[in-house]
Amino acid sequence: MALIVQKYGGTSLGSLDLIRQVAERVIQTRKREGHQVVVVLSAMAGETDRLIGMAGDISESPDPREVDVLISTGEQVSVALFCMAVRDLGFKARSLLGFQAKIITDNLYGRARIQDIDVTRIRDLLDRGNIVAVAGFQGFDERGNITTLGRGGSDTTAVALAAALEADVCEIYTDVSGVYTTDPRICEEARKLETVSYEEMLEMSSLGAKVLEIRSVEFAMKFGVPIHVRHSQTDEPGTLIVKEDEDMEHMIISGVVYNRNEARITVTKVPDKPGMAAAILSPVSNAGIIVDMIIQNTSIGSEDATDFSFSVPMNDFERAMRLVRDVAKEIGAEKVVGDDSITKISLVGVGMRNHAGVATKMFDALAKEGINILMISTSEIKISCVISDKYTELAVRAVHSAFGLDKE
Amino acid sequence: MALIVQKYGGTSLGSLDLIRQVAERVIQTRKREGHQVVVVLSAMAGETDRLIGMAGDISESPDPREVDVLISTGEQVSVALFCMAVRDLGFKARSLLGFQAKIITDNLYGRARIQDIDVTRIRDLLDRGNIVAVAGFQGFDERGNITTLGRGGSDTTAVALAAALEADVCEIYTDVSGVYTTDPRICEEARKLETVSYEEMLEMSSLGAKVLEIRSVEFAMKFGVPIHVRHSQTDEPGTLIVKEDEDMEHMIISGVVYNRNEARITVTKVPDKPGMAAAILSPVSNAGIIVDMIIQNTSIGSEDATDFSFSVPMNDFERAMRLVRDVAKEIGAEKVVGDDSITKISLVGVGMRNHAGVATKMFDALAKEGINILMISTSEIKISCVISDKYTELAVRAVHSAFGLDKE
Repeated sequence: MALIVQKYGGTSLGSLDLIRQVAERVIQTRKREGHQVVVVLSAMAGETDRLIGMAGDISESPDPREVDVLISTGEQVSVALFCMAVRDLGFKARSLLGFQAKIITDNLYGRARIQDIDVTRIRDLLDRGNIVAVAGFQGFDERGNITTLGRGGSDTTAVALAAALEADVCEIYTDVSGVYTTDPRICEEARKLETVSYEEMLEMSSLGAKVLEIRSVEFAMKFGVPIHVRHSQTDEPGTLIVKEDEDMEHMIISGVVYNRNEARITVTKVPDKPGMAAAILSPVSNAGIIVDMIIQNTSIGSEDATDFSFSVPMNDFERAMRLVRDVAKEIGAEKVVGDDSITKISLVGVGMRNHAGVATKMFDALAKEGINILMISTSEIKISCVISDKYTELAVRAVHSAFGLDKE
Repeated sequence: MALIVQKYGGTSLGSLDLIRQVAERVIQTRKREGHQVVVVLSAMAGETDRLIGMAGDISESPDPREVDVLISTGEQVSVALFCMAVRDLGFKARSLLGFQAKIITDNLYGRARIQDIDVTRIRDLLDRGNIVAVAGFQGFDERGNITTLGRGGSDTTAVALAAALEADVCEIYTDVSGVYTTDPRICEEARKLETVSYEEMLEMSSLGAKVLEIRSVEFAMKFGVPIHVRHSQTDEPGTLIVKEDEDMEHMIISGVVYNRNEARITVTKVPDKPGMAAAILSPVSNAGIIVDMIIQNTSIGSEDATDFSFSVPMNDFERAMRLVRDVAKEIGAEKVVGDDSITKISLVGVGMRNHAGVATKMFDALAKEGINILMISTSEIKISCVISDKYTELAVRAVHSAFGLDKE
């Protein structure tokens, strides 16, 4: 008998019928396979957005503490309905909200971090034969205030519970069948990966793959929780996310991911003297804007000036442009140019550590299609290129094929 | 500076605009009048029914514990939105759910009773200048399970909080202007009462007046909490419910109430021997059905048999009929006759204790209109008559006028 944590997302819980299907699926795991099951549920599809909409309608800048009180009702409704459905099918079930499951967080409303989980009560309920349904996405701080973990927080709840319970596996049920070599919607040859390492998944998540929330992967890596990403309506195995080891399939590259949600800002003719990068980026990061790629060339030739580029999330683009225009004047740069029609396309794979020529092969593949590279950045296990947005699909297919990801 | 508990019902919170209006009203009390305010809120109009509907759709007999987890979200949404609205208007506000306000109940899901309230945190928040919004209708048991207090439970939350906080007054805001001498919808001459005693209000609530939930009146009487029933959209004073004393307006009768929600069951020719009443009523009360009026005449004349009548809530009528038909056979009674077209009309007034002839005057008023009385029951401060349903309006007006309730 194993202990399994299963997490179901909002699209798997979009209606009462779907909730009933999830109940049946969980009972199968409990009954046929004889496992103890802790289920983590998101809000029903659309519910969180509906609640956030209400908050925005009643206040221009809704109080963060009260927003968490409001939106945590979404998961509360899900676990209650789920337990009713399970009991209706003749099995014992108990719902637990964040404070009842003793999920203790800091008090950063809307983006709280889990600090501790006391699983005594969950273990007790499991031992008495219950399926335990925990409301995802929510916790409480030491003074008893309700907190939420931010978008996708239910993944983190599930992994954190799996770690605290020392569960055998954390199954993330979603509307895709697993982790793919690239987005199947734009590349038909995309292939489902059997396994992927935590590090690769981390890169993929932070680079734009939307299968798993990045914090949940960090948590899983830290505590060594195996994650199994699966489709909620089929029985076929999905993708296992585990510690990198010698038994894993020996691919150089695991996947191609892309992110359309960034914009590029370029400051031209920045005086070539020390402190310019800091001068430009300080007001941006002081405003809480996360800067991703940063490119500065050494100035060559007679002009003692250089171009300085960086990328920011699309949401913060206008705000960042205003800040940088001000600073450009102060430091005597020429002008500020913004471009919000860019895509960052990235290659990820632990195998590239030991293989030379991966970057060159990627640049070649793009060049062959006539695609101009605007920015480049690399890490030990990934290479990212910023290109013009209109080439996204073409670039993904070209790179996917160049590395043979379409073949087993 | 006074401490005031204000309760707003679902119709006063039916939309975001109405919630904003309530926020403005509460701020007035806080600011203009300088009082500390604790606000108790119901779910937005229709929300509890919507949630109960979902429970009924997912399970034929939804688990009571999970129903409470589900429906308690209604009040949670209200307090969060309310606090956002208050803060948007520049005042400090804090929401507290049942477990955060430390409203401890027994564990009878769906009809829990408040056992204790620890107001330390509420006092602390008030002292720091907050308007405190407590989710009505909900509490938690000693193991941390969420409980609800049953329909109208927010009234009870408000009064219990007022008692625990030793508040100066508990204001119940609703969609009527106060307590009337009778239902203004069927009697134009109905007059709003300035004051009414706890005992009268108790009788009125239990006899069918829907202004206040009966448990809240019991609570207020027990702890001497003055209740002020007011309209949520006007500033005019409503009705004050207080301890009976000599300063109260000296009326013999305070009001005429009626209840259409009962049905009468008559067992004919019940053998006249000991134990028959118990034999008939035991299976009914064992089934959890509350019997209201019970009438048995001594048998007179040659036949050693009597007719036995009692009334039950309309919802339980069919079930009670089946139970009584079975027992009638066993004890050798003649037959069982049911009547669900009845109304109970009641006169309530503490003054009738010291006045003879009140009952006679009521019977006369009904007789003059040709209305037949089917059952009678009396207590120290009320007289109830069951009549045919079709005479309801006529009977209310006749009795209201006979006792001069239309005149100041």
